[in-house]
Amino acid sequence: MTDPVQGGRQFAFLLVDKFSMFSLAAAIDTFRSANRLLGRDFYGWTTVSADGDPVMASNGLPLKIDYAVADLPPVDILFVSVGLTTEFPGKSKVLAALRSWGRRGNALGALSVGSYLLAEAGQLEGYRCTIHWENRAGFVERFPDINCTGNVFEIDRKRYTCAGGTTSIDLMLEIVRGDFGSNLANGVANQSQHERIRSAGDRQRVGPERDLTGKSEKLRRIVELMADHLDEPLSAVQLAKSAGLSVRQVERLFLRHL
Amino acid sequence: MTDPVQGGRQFAFLLVDKFSMFSLAAAIDTFRSANRLLGRDFYGWTTVSADGDPVMASNGLPLKIDYAVADLPPVDILFVSVGLTTEFPGKSKVLAALRSWGRRGNALGALSVGSYLLAEAGQLEGYRCTIHWENRAGFVERFPDINCTGNVFEIDRKRYTCAGGTTSIDLMLEIVRGDFGSNLANGVANQSQHERIRSAGDRQRVGPERDLTGKSEKLRRIVELMADHLDEPLSAVQLAKSAGLSVRQVERLFLRHL
Repeated sequence: MTDPVQGGRQFAFLLVDKFSMFSLAAAIDTFRSANRLLGRDFYGWTTVSADGDPVMASNGLPLKIDYAVADLPPVDILFVSVGLTTEFPGKSKVLAALRSWGRRGNALGALSVGSYLLAEAGQLEGYRCTIHWENRAGFVERFPDINCTGNVFEIDRKRYTCAGGTTSIDLMLEIVRGDFGSNLANGVANQSQHERIRSAGDRQRVGPERDLTGKSEKLRRIVELMADHLDEPLSAVQLAKSAGLSVRQVERLFLRHL
Repeated sequence: MTDPVQGGRQFAFLLVDKFSMFSLAAAIDTFRSANRLLGRDFYGWTTVSADGDPVMASNGLPLKIDYAVADLPPVDILFVSVGLTTEFPGKSKVLAALRSWGRRGNALGALSVGSYLLAEAGQLEGYRCTIHWENRAGFVERFPDINCTGNVFEIDRKRYTCAGGTTSIDLMLEIVRGDFGSNLANGVANQSQHERIRSAGDRQRVGPERDLTGKSEKLRRIVELMADHLDEPLSAVQLAKSAGLSVRQVERLFLRHL
């Protein structure tokens, strides 16, 4: 990111129908807490929708919106926040706005499933990104040439993407840390009861992993390997070799445990 | 909690001016994710304010509200969500509603700083509770007879309190776990990218702890001791003894580092 404009940073959050209020609030309240600890409003934020109309979050709560996307004043990063669906009213306006924003060399970001929309708008070609683990396989199938890592967040030049939920905190704290250092980032994490600040290198914990607690360590390792290679699945032979087992043993593990 | 009413549970969230949208969304989206994984709307929620008017969160975003507190239909737990201030418009109505709700034997809960309001309404006498670490000293001073533990959440009979931020997730997942078991709770945690589900016995990580990184280990130990005994502060002699120092050395440590 470049030096702060006018002694502060401004972010806009473009919300679409069924966006995740949780990952939005996790993002915004990170900046709010940073301001509070700084004692001044260094970080600012506005909300945007296709037409400026209120948007319903995936939890059913309606949020009033500051701007229609066409009227958005300049900001440092425009984040798009997508939750349960990538099809929604006003989608063509949203895509056009993302395209025009990116074409002018501006920074774009995504919360949760927002990377899908950035990719649809052609704004992730040649960039590293991430997305919520539940949507990664679909993303990779649709956009095979984009490097979607499955990490908790990714910052690649002017593209800031995170995987939703509490990973919004990690991404925004990386921005805060870059501006003011680790002490402030740690202070904000404690305000939000965020136990551990994850870095871009941290992988998401995908759905099945925890359910394997108490199950075979070798099985756990194999499931992790499979999750790591959703885009280019490993063969049974490769999986078995990585776990130090025969293919027959892997098959038996799966029959016994899953 | 008793058996679910009508095959499901209903929660209400009573919001006051400058409530934390983050801890509210962390709570509600936990139930939303549980419903999604269950494939049915077992958990329901409504929002409530003193007069049913929209309420402004501490992050400046306005939320439309379902009910005035006087019109609230029966729910399993009424949670009160308080953020940056315990003084706000309509406070007397809110306190009256909490009192009347509790007097009828109903369950009450609190997010973030909400325990302060439950205590003001006389609804925590004889109960164990918790509150955001920043407000614990003030709480203990004002309500010396209430056992405010400083843990991430507390469930004591019909009182459900948590310390705000991501601890809303831990408290609500404890309810989900009680209803459906650990597999569902773990699945929801992974949906929300919540790295570790904390239990009621987990202490909050208070502000100064991390900021003392790199400072004297002895100072860190003393600050922890002080944080642990906010309700019955240790004397300088006791603190010094616990840290293996003289009182004069403790004084010098504080002068040098704080």
